[in-house]
Amino acid sequence: MAKEIERKFLITSDAWRFEAGSGIRMRQAVILTQDRHMMRVRLYGDGRARLTVKVGIDALRRHEFEYDIPPEDAAEMLSMALGSEIAKTRYEIHHGRHVWEIDCFEGALEGLVIAEVEMEEEDLSPDLPDWLGREVTDDPRFTNQALAEGSLGENWRDVLSV
Amino acid sequence: MAKEIERKFLITSDAWRFEAGSGIRMRQAVILTQDRHMMRVRLYGDGRARLTVKVGIDALRRHEFEYDIPPEDAAEMLSMALGSEIAKTRYEIHHGRHVWEIDCFEGALEGLVIAEVEMEEEDLSPDLPDWLGREVTDDPRFTNQALAEGSLGENWRDVLSV
Repeated sequence: MAKEIERKFLITSDAWRFEAGSGIRMRQAVILTQDRHMMRVRLYGDGRARLTVKVGIDALRRHEFEYDIPPEDAAEMLSMALGSEIAKTRYEIHHGRHVWEIDCFEGALEGLVIAEVEMEEEDLSPDLPDWLGREVTDDPRFTNQALAEGSLGENWRDVLSV
Repeated sequence: MAKEIERKFLITSDAWRFEAGSGIRMRQAVILTQDRHMMRVRLYGDGRARLTVKVGIDALRRHEFEYDIPPEDAAEMLSMALGSEIAKTRYEIHHGRHVWEIDCFEGALEGLVIAEVEMEEEDLSPDLPDWLGREVTDDPRFTNQALAEGSLGENWRDVLSV
């Protein structure tokens, strides 16, 4: 179990790529969701798979549980997920005391890049890398699930460049 | 993954106890549910814990995935479950080609005993033990979740004896 507090930012330049190693591709979908609780499955490009349960306390804080599962199970759950599937490649960048996860989305969201940092409750002020763009932590359109369901609309490139 | 097809019966006599070994006590709750999908957690009296995901195809058929998880995780999820918790002791009886699970409920449902058999799709006609009572497979009040939420009402003993 981990108490998860996140901040999330758009990225519009490529400057972060100089600091990033190789990424890992993943397919993921929310299998089911109710209130602040959700269960998600991820199938990684290297064959691993993971089930994540997030149990919400309030908008900012959720308890998170993660379990490795057989990739066949993940593939089957993905095919029956109630949420839409998304595919992205994730890079990690260590910056200051924190690890930033940079997600480069595919498909209809090709070109969208989002940076996310998870913080401990005791340490809520991460160093912000200068390649970060606008913060979208509180924008409900930028949850993975909302993105998968087309929250940004078809013309999202125009909207985000504003 | 297992494709799960179940039949469920009430039990009103104690004849089954002669065939049963010792049971195992469990606390369980549905953590979240959406449409025909659900995630449940069970914490067993012997310290084991298990997370179960059921992904529904139709009313009778669900794909089921089960994973052992740390008991601390299970206890924490139980405390934040969206469904109500129930406690029961489960006994197993081998009869013909099948294993019957006999659940003896506690708390407000003390005295309620339900037998359940899981079948393969290829073999849908189990031998029915003669200690079975009325079949309740299609009665939505008898899912664990409905029972936990008080589906039978306070006077369920009167109702069931009819």
